[in-house]
Amino acid sequence: MKATVTITLKQGVLDPQGKAIEHALTGLGFDGVGEARQGKVIALTLDESDEAAARAAVEAMCKQLLANPVMEDYEIALTP
Amino acid sequence: MKATVTITLKQGVLDPQGKAIEHALTGLGFDGVGEARQGKVIALTLDESDEAAARAAVEAMCKQLLANPVMEDYEIALTP
Repeated sequence: MKATVTITLKQGVLDPQGKAIEHALTGLGFDGVGEARQGKVIALTLDESDEAAARAAVEAMCKQLLANPVMEDYEIALTP
Repeated sequence: MKATVTITLKQGVLDPQGKAIEHALTGLGFDGVGEARQGKVIALTLDESDEAAARAAVEAMCKQLLANPVMEDYEIALTP
C-alpha cells in the first residue's frame, strides 16, 4: 500500500518560503498571483495491506516524526 | 482559482531526505516501511478564473521557477 502525506503550515503561521516564491513570481512578470504557501509531500511504501491499520500507522508516524502538529496540518491519502 | 503544484524527484534521482525519513521511521520502531520519498507542494492563489489560462500560467511558473525539470516531475491541480 502506498501512502502520501501532505504537510502544510497552518493558516496564520508565517511562511517565508511561500513569500519568497510570491516575490520571485512577481519579479518574473507573473501578475495575478495572490498568496503562495509551500509545504511538503512524503510518499511512503508500506507493507501493510489493511487500509485502517495503514492509516493508523501513518497517523502515528506523522505525530511522532513527519509533522509538527503545533505548526503544521497533515493529510493522509492511501492507495492500494 | 487555486492551484496546487506537487513537485517530486524523478524516479532514480537520489533522495537523501527520503532516506533520512526511512531510517528515522525504522529507528522509531515502524516496521514495514519500504521506500520514502520527499517532495514539495506549493499552493498558489491566482486571479485568473479561466482554467486553461491558469494551467498555462502555472505550467510556465513551474518551468521557470518552481521545479527543476531535469531532476523533478511536477503535477498541477486546479480548483475554482
